[in-house]
Amino acid sequence: MRALWVSAHPDSHSLTGHLRTLGVHTLRSDGWQVTESDLYAMRWDPVLHTEGGPDVEAEQRKLLDADLVVLQFPLWWYGMPAIMKGWIDRVFEREFAYDVLDPVTGRARKYGDGGLVGRRALTVVTAGDRPGSLGPRGISGSIDDVLWPLLHGTLWYTGMSALRPHLITRARDVDADTIADVEEALTGRLHGVVDEQPIPYLPLNERYYDHSIALHPHVSPAECGNDAHRLA
Amino acid sequence: MRALWVSAHPDSHSLTGHLRTLGVHTLRSDGWQVTESDLYAMRWDPVLHTEGGPDVEAEQRKLLDADLVVLQFPLWWYGMPAIMKGWIDRVFEREFAYDVLDPVTGRARKYGDGGLVGRRALTVVTAGDRPGSLGPRGISGSIDDVLWPLLHGTLWYTGMSALRPHLITRARDVDADTIADVEEALTGRLHGVVDEQPIPYLPLNERYYDHSIALHPHVSPAECGNDAHRLA
Repeated sequence: MRALWVSAHPDSHSLTGHLRTLGVHTLRSDGWQVTESDLYAMRWDPVLHTEGGPDVEAEQRKLLDADLVVLQFPLWWYGMPAIMKGWIDRVFEREFAYDVLDPVTGRARKYGDGGLVGRRALTVVTAGDRPGSLGPRGISGSIDDVLWPLLHGTLWYTGMSALRPHLITRARDVDADTIADVEEALTGRLHGVVDEQPIPYLPLNERYYDHSIALHPHVSPAECGNDAHRLA
Repeated sequence: MRALWVSAHPDSHSLTGHLRTLGVHTLRSDGWQVTESDLYAMRWDPVLHTEGGPDVEAEQRKLLDADLVVLQFPLWWYGMPAIMKGWIDRVFEREFAYDVLDPVTGRARKYGDGGLVGRRALTVVTAGDRPGSLGPRGISGSIDDVLWPLLHGTLWYTGMSALRPHLITRARDVDADTIADVEEALTGRLHGVVDEQPIPYLPLNERYYDHSIALHPHVSPAECGNDAHRLA
């Protein structure tokens, strides 16, 4: 079992840095072989110009080798820090992660299928928000809706099974009294990472989607928003 | 009337580059004073380390001077290219765009209020997707849900009035036969940019949100997903 742990925080002494060390240690204790991509420490260049480069190829190999991909980041403006978005922009290349064609139909394999099929992906996210703010009717939108472009539009798009985000709220207030709970929640999550059910996003096929790749009227008729794209 | 046009595309001969030239010209013909931030041409550094820097201050001045902010980008992995995400990460600083405190209540002004209140913001987005894919029940999620972290979590969060995204689908297929329609749609949109109604996101106040900053049960009771945070 091989894991790739990708993280993005400018300060290695941050909560993100602390939980990365703990998370990698936990996976290794559980028998995982873990590779890391600490994007700030690597001085990753996030700006896509032309495709390719030895740094891109190295990250692609890490991805292909991994059964589990962990993306750990602080929530900045309700998304990934630019350095991690640019890791995706550059590494998830055409014909590697997307526009991987099915040899029979000639169609691009995507949404539940694609270049990275067979991998699980866990997002570990620290946010300054209070828990209610990122709940189902919270002002910032549910964490599933906030991370929709990543969970569904990137991970599921390329064939990976996205697990529910591991969200740590009030991250700026974590202190000596509360860190143990935060640590325990993460290690517990990682111990069970192989057994948990991924988000049941619908695969792209004619059973669920019509020719315009919108949901058939009879699929999730009562759901609105992004939840309509999950198996009930 | 002053506008700031921010764009992010590595190729100035792209559709994005062409529509930027057209858009800036259109605004100027309508009497706007337009400033540009062409992030690739500026070699903008998107990686946040410590705060500040002369490049950040220059962009902040442009924002403060603008009545209209246009963010133009190709949709990469259902979000902004990293270089533009990092323009926000670095320029939208604490006490400039967020954590701007109300002197009376001491609370942070956010969601409909904040450091950038009084400005309109228009996103101009090119996507390879077919139109159905980004419609209300399209497989990629509606464009409003896909851009939720930007429209609501960034623009509205800092006080700006977000206009409906100007979306150009099948962007890779735009050719000599279809470019005129694409151009006309954009210029028409820009001619009316002062008069159109922004997305009616709910402001953060006790009428709509409870102490956990989730919606009161009686607000948008039948709506689910992000649409619950709009005025009916």
